[in-house]
Amino acid sequence: MHPLSEEKVFKDPVHNYIHVKDSTIWRLINTSEFQRLRRIRQLGTSYLTFHGAEHSRFSHSLGVYEITRQIISQFERNGYVDWPKEEKLLALCAALLHDLGHGPFSHSMEEAFDMNHEEWTRRIITGDTEVNLILGEVETGFPEKVASVIAKTYEKAIVVNLVSSPLDADRMDYLLRDAYYTGVNYGTIDMDRILRILRPYKGRVVVKESGMHAVEDYLMSRYQMYWQVYFHPVTRSSDILLRQIFRRAKELHQSGYEFAFMLKPLPQLFEDKITEEDYLKLDEALIQTAFMQWSEEEDAILSDLCYRFMHRRLYKYVEVESLDNEFIDEIKNEFERVGMNLDYDLEIDFPTDLPYDVFRPGEVSSQKQILLLDRNDRLREISEVSDIVRSISGIHRGKCHLYYPANKVETVMSLLSPSVALIFKR
Amino acid sequence: MHPLSEEKVFKDPVHNYIHVKDSTIWRLINTSEFQRLRRIRQLGTSYLTFHGAEHSRFSHSLGVYEITRQIISQFERNGYVDWPKEEKLLALCAALLHDLGHGPFSHSMEEAFDMNHEEWTRRIITGDTEVNLILGEVETGFPEKVASVIAKTYEKAIVVNLVSSPLDADRMDYLLRDAYYTGVNYGTIDMDRILRILRPYKGRVVVKESGMHAVEDYLMSRYQMYWQVYFHPVTRSSDILLRQIFRRAKELHQSGYEFAFMLKPLPQLFEDKITEEDYLKLDEALIQTAFMQWSEEEDAILSDLCYRFMHRRLYKYVEVESLDNEFIDEIKNEFERVGMNLDYDLEIDFPTDLPYDVFRPGEVSSQKQILLLDRNDRLREISEVSDIVRSISGIHRGKCHLYYPANKVETVMSLLSPSVALIFKR
Amino acid sequence: MHPLSEEKVFKDPVHNYIHVKDSTIWRLINTSEFQRLRRIRQLGTSYLTFHGAEHSRFSHSLGVYEITRQIISQFERNGYVDWPKEEKLLALCAALLHDLGHGPFSHSMEEAFDMNHEEWTRRIITGDTEVNLILGEVETGFPEKVASVIAKTYEKAIVVNLVSSPLDADRMDYLLRDAYYTGVNYGTIDMDRILRILRPYKGRVVVKESGMHAVEDYLMSRYQMYWQVYFHPVTRSSDILLRQIFRRAKELHQSGYEFAFMLKPLPQLFEDKITEEDYLKLDEALIQTAFMQWSEEEDAILSDLCYRFMHRRLYKYVEVESLDNEFIDEIKNEFERVGMNLDYDLEIDFPTDLPYDVFRPGEVSSQKQILLLDRNDRLREISEVSDIVRSISGIHRGKCHLYYPANKVETVMSLLSPSVALIFKR
Amino acid sequence: MHPLSEEKVFKDPVHNYIHVKDSTIWRLINTSEFQRLRRIRQLGTSYLTFHGAEHSRFSHSLGVYEITRQIISQFERNGYVDWPKEEKLLALCAALLHDLGHGPFSHSMEEAFDMNHEEWTRRIITGDTEVNLILGEVETGFPEKVASVIAKTYEKAIVVNLVSSPLDADRMDYLLRDAYYTGVNYGTIDMDRILRILRPYKGRVVVKESGMHAVEDYLMSRYQMYWQVYFHPVTRSSDILLRQIFRRAKELHQSGYEFAFMLKPLPQLFEDKITEEDYLKLDEALIQTAFMQWSEEEDAILSDLCYRFMHRRLYKYVEVESLDNEFIDEIKNEFERVGMNLDYDLEIDFPTDLPYDVFRPGEVSSQKQILLLDRNDRLREISEVSDIVRSISGIHRGKCHLYYPANKVETVMSLLSPSVALIFKR
Repeated sequence: MHPLSEEKVFKDPVHNYIHVKDSTIWRLINTSEFQRLRRIRQLGTSYLTFHGAEHSRFSHSLGVYEITRQIISQFERNGYVDWPKEEKLLALCAALLHDLGHGPFSHSMEEAFDMNHEEWTRRIITGDTEVNLILGEVETGFPEKVASVIAKTYEKAIVVNLVSSPLDADRMDYLLRDAYYTGVNYGTIDMDRILRILRPYKGRVVVKESGMHAVEDYLMSRYQMYWQVYFHPVTRSSDILLRQIFRRAKELHQSGYEFAFMLKPLPQLFEDKITEEDYLKLDEALIQTAFMQWSEEEDAILSDLCYRFMHRRLYKYVEVESLDNEFIDEIKNEFERVGMNLDYDLEIDFPTDLPYDVFRPGEVSSQKQILLLDRNDRLREISEVSDIVRSISGIHRGKCHLYYPANKVETVMSLLSPSVALIFKR
Repeated sequence: MHPLSEEKVFKDPVHNYIHVKDSTIWRLINTSEFQRLRRIRQLGTSYLTFHGAEHSRFSHSLGVYEITRQIISQFERNGYVDWPKEEKLLALCAALLHDLGHGPFSHSMEEAFDMNHEEWTRRIITGDTEVNLILGEVETGFPEKVASVIAKTYEKAIVVNLVSSPLDADRMDYLLRDAYYTGVNYGTIDMDRILRILRPYKGRVVVKESGMHAVEDYLMSRYQMYWQVYFHPVTRSSDILLRQIFRRAKELHQSGYEFAFMLKPLPQLFEDKITEEDYLKLDEALIQTAFMQWSEEEDAILSDLCYRFMHRRLYKYVEVESLDNEFIDEIKNEFERVGMNLDYDLEIDFPTDLPYDVFRPGEVSSQKQILLLDRNDRLREISEVSDIVRSISGIHRGKCHLYYPANKVETVMSLLSPSVALIFKR
Repeated sequence: MHPLSEEKVFKDPVHNYIHVKDSTIWRLINTSEFQRLRRIRQLGTSYLTFHGAEHSRFSHSLGVYEITRQIISQFERNGYVDWPKEEKLLALCAALLHDLGHGPFSHSMEEAFDMNHEEWTRRIITGDTEVNLILGEVETGFPEKVASVIAKTYEKAIVVNLVSSPLDADRMDYLLRDAYYTGVNYGTIDMDRILRILRPYKGRVVVKESGMHAVEDYLMSRYQMYWQVYFHPVTRSSDILLRQIFRRAKELHQSGYEFAFMLKPLPQLFEDKITEEDYLKLDEALIQTAFMQWSEEEDAILSDLCYRFMHRRLYKYVEVESLDNEFIDEIKNEFERVGMNLDYDLEIDFPTDLPYDVFRPGEVSSQKQILLLDRNDRLREISEVSDIVRSISGIHRGKCHLYYPANKVETVMSLLSPSVALIFKR
Repeated sequence: MHPLSEEKVFKDPVHNYIHVKDSTIWRLINTSEFQRLRRIRQLGTSYLTFHGAEHSRFSHSLGVYEITRQIISQFERNGYVDWPKEEKLLALCAALLHDLGHGPFSHSMEEAFDMNHEEWTRRIITGDTEVNLILGEVETGFPEKVASVIAKTYEKAIVVNLVSSPLDADRMDYLLRDAYYTGVNYGTIDMDRILRILRPYKGRVVVKESGMHAVEDYLMSRYQMYWQVYFHPVTRSSDILLRQIFRRAKELHQSGYEFAFMLKPLPQLFEDKITEEDYLKLDEALIQTAFMQWSEEEDAILSDLCYRFMHRRLYKYVEVESLDNEFIDEIKNEFERVGMNLDYDLEIDFPTDLPYDVFRPGEVSSQKQILLLDRNDRLREISEVSDIVRSISGIHRGKCHLYYPANKVETVMSLLSPSVALIFKR
């Protein structure tokens, strides 16, 4: 590691200061690829539900780096022999860069196109980029090493564990940060306490048993953040609009439609031919600008969807306790009968569609377990010990939501069968 | 006022909840003109200095509304006779809409073009807009009334006072909000205390004398926020880049240069022919997209400036304690001699250029005074009573800063005269 | 109600300000009986575990009053017809005075003597006191009404419900306050949100169904506070000392022992002949002074216990996963054999001994249920709907603790049987 | 230093955790002399003004230790050569023990009797105590070294500077802690920032010039805390009562009065013959118990004063803008004429009587200066550079307060001359 002549700091609302002492880290932060993360929001469309949630993946990435730095620093201060000191810079780089491949409105875009941000992270780190150049100066093969830690294939599991596990720096930062920026206070975890109870142990990061309550509290916070913020039905509604816009634009492009406004690299994106150089130009400003322009496109479906997104005329939703296939078919038939467009005017959101990341104990993969270490050096999975954890993990949500353009449904309401109309009348 | 059937709330990190009870307010928030404020950052380029400061004018406007609502609610609860109850909705609308005319990177744009956000606020409120329609439904002439409160010309000074004064809802919200999002804790004022000490009194909002310390603390916070955040030299540096970009693009446009990328309504902006409809399409996404595209324009000056802005390669700065005209001329001459571009490669920032809003007691305009009301109903300006306030207001900052592209200056360093080179060598 | 000429406030770290508008409330706060609560700590001996937890029942009582005031104020603002407006002052008085009968180190004292703080609250409110006088001025029989609300026998269940229920102002204040003063952040609940979801409904305070997550979060906080703070084994250890001191002193007094130091009303307390006037003189200063003096008493057991308590030489503890009666007998026999005093040198603390107040759904008593009200005006107990709540409530802790004077056990360690010695060697 | 086998922590609301790694520190905390600080409130009678301010000198002492630990840790991490590493344990011990000699209601007691807490700190550290024993084990003469650091006579000025200077750990902790427990938010300083700007430099702790604003903010917070909390007139009123009680009890004792209640070591205190052993038994519980008992003494003055103190029937006060000697004499004459007791029924509090600790730049003593270190290694006193600091320091408060028993003055009001009566009628 090459220390900077003077420590640099970033003022951060969540961690107060983010400390950078190593010149490689400093230079990575200043690459154009990392600076691009300033133009990608951490929570996608959640700002349409929580107006404060405008924070970027840049902030989050610095936060993950800072927490990792603090964990390692604690390991070093306590002189734990199970921590491989020589892996520090590798772990810090992987922590900082783990989200580098995220695109604008990442999750919705990944659903709409055939893309994967983890694959992009790997390509940017190992491709012809500023980041690659700086990592390459550390030692030959270092960029690939960093990529392998992020891809969870690096041989030393403890380094992977630090960056990706149910109790990793990534999740700790996003809980704290998303809670801070949304203003929802469920995400406030006692990070100092969690830092104190982590131990490197036989190639893993484990938890001192006396810290079980702190882990319970952390998992409970995560549970609350999922239901209060990440799965908020208004956010789902804006995600649906977004996906529909991407779908419609791609359809139109493929059908040879002439857009009044089109900007590189959107065509490449629609054609699945996007290069790294192109990809790095994608940001949320470009997407929003395209949507703004398209809200005046000739195609009525695209312009309506874009107008809705830009001016926050979201689809409304109704919650339905249970919904059998027969009734779904009835709704669809009725919608078709009265002239609604089934492709765009109705979306049924089942809870199982959700990108569920709530902690599930008992996973086969050891990277997904939280292990407690007791005084007799016995390791046990937390769900063996904690009733709370068992309880949270077993919870399934049965309710589903129907999303639809309220104004359109209004105009056909009187034509719908009573049982179907009843659903939308609430 | 037409109450909503059920109170609506917005979750807000600064005020916890923002309460909306009136349907006019609710409908104003949902207009496309107000939603547009989501796409204008509250602090312009400050996010390049404080990465957390991505919050929008939408958030701030809701906050100003909420504080105004709380002040009025306190006035009503205490039954103060000097508060004209019938003005409540007017005050709330003016508070909510006071920043409606801000454009993207507002202050820099106003400096670069001949524009004024207050004038735009007026035009949007009284023009052919959704906002105008909704205000018009309250009563004939209501839009103009709202505009006049914001323009400080409304006849009942107390309403103006509530929205624009040295202790108004606008300033209270931005101190709290900017402190929260930057993470700088100097802005944390005791708003509950300040609410408690405000009194409507003979057409003004005044302060109970026993609350003098709270006002001192508030003014001190403001002072600190100015020097720590608003005037931060790194933010000044990005503002300078922004202004140079606007200037260059306008020059090029006027000289007939053919842009590889151009998007409506930028040409209208460069030609000072922008309509309300055009103006409402301007947002920071569009500006950033243009800059991104222009970073590949043929014109070397424009593309360099845009590349710098987008990837945060800001101009460096040196602080100079005092700078006489003679020495400035010497620097300029030297720069010219060695082939630097005086129009773009050097900016001298005098403190007097700053948009100084620090409280100045003794202003002739009564709207700019803070008055204390003592037990004997005597009004005194705060600076008569508080030494601290006198002290803060008298402070002048002598230092100025030189901004320049470090890489270019580096290449000519050896050619510069020693005395000039010395300045840039630190 | 008789409003004060000017609202009074108390600066409070938890609620920022406590607002008093009614002169009855103001006068009650200033009675010597209420002021006495300043000299009774809210958390008993917890300050020996959490050094910040020195806050008094005075603070807590003001807090309970303030939350009740805010709930009622919300009910009134929303014009809910199920709230009986005329009961406001009664509810506020009951909230303020509900803990009036607590004695010094209340729970330990109640265990040591045959006492009950609720009975004392009733006696003080209805007896010959300043509080009684002031309440009596409201209307004839008002003191008895207040006492009946606190005793949960008042006819209008909703008033009782407000002051004593699983989601009452008492519990909300103590969670927030104890979290604040201990520094443990698990107790931070979103009180504003909870206020918003409470509804008066058919003689009960119920919860709007959409607020279920907020209630889950509140119950989870309570669960955490119980295990992290209220049941902390170090606090249990000091409670045990305290109880032993009271027991020993009572034994000595009954046996005719001549104390070098004795102060009224301690003898009355030992003889169960304490009057209200006496009781009101008991405070923690008196108890601590007695202990300090007694740490030099001739009786070795009493002086040792008092010395330990005053200088924090607490009993040590070991946690035992399970403990059958046979093994307990073995430990006791061994202790006796080696000359330990079974009455004072060993305490076995079973979890079932704990004053368990964790929420238990399904209670027969309707006052102990939390009811959710859905959109169709259907009431359901929360545990029918929430898996989390069912899970928390079902948790039983199996572990028990042995408490003992470490120095004494040390000296006999080599004499104990190996299996018993093993327990104390960890 | 002898590290503990495992780091110990104290949960602290202000610093989150207080970390103890050294066994000497751990053992010092567990001495009975240090535990005694739990029974001495940090803010004396302020809890009668701010009900939350019940925190002890024990908490504060741990906090001062923790800040000192963090400062030194920062010095070590940065490898500053001007910090003498071998002094670490000495500095930590001095920080921890600096308030060891404080008695109950310290400042009032010092005024009433001829006592000095600093002298007592020295006596306890160097006398026959547990603390002395533990310090003595570090090395011969170590207790005396610790005492000399606290007495500011230790030869290495930088160690003294760390513990006693205008920007020392003591002041930083009390600002933060007193703000936290009173709930007044003026004291919230950015400690992380201040830690970052401190530098050991040529035998002093100085401040990096770029941190000037943080120091301004800190001094402003201190200024606000003095006027909002420390000099609060209600607290002054309770201090006056306290001093009067001590004075009266001493008078009575000296005159041979037979107290119904008297407890060792109060007689020794009255006779100025108190030993260390006696002194260590003095705590606030004992004082409060005595006052409670004395509120039934036969002497009417003493019992009235004690009753007032225990049940918070404080003297009222009026603020007088200016008061010349002539008018004071008139008031006194009038009071005497109508039969008031001049010794107890009137106290005139001049601002100059206040224990003024507001920062005064320009002090001759170098230990009282705050020095800024600029990039050219030039040292300047902060008031040379900061207008704010100059302003705060020059502020003098002219107002004085009259304190008096309102009920007594009421009864003679009609007898007083109009000009004197007018003062008390407000």
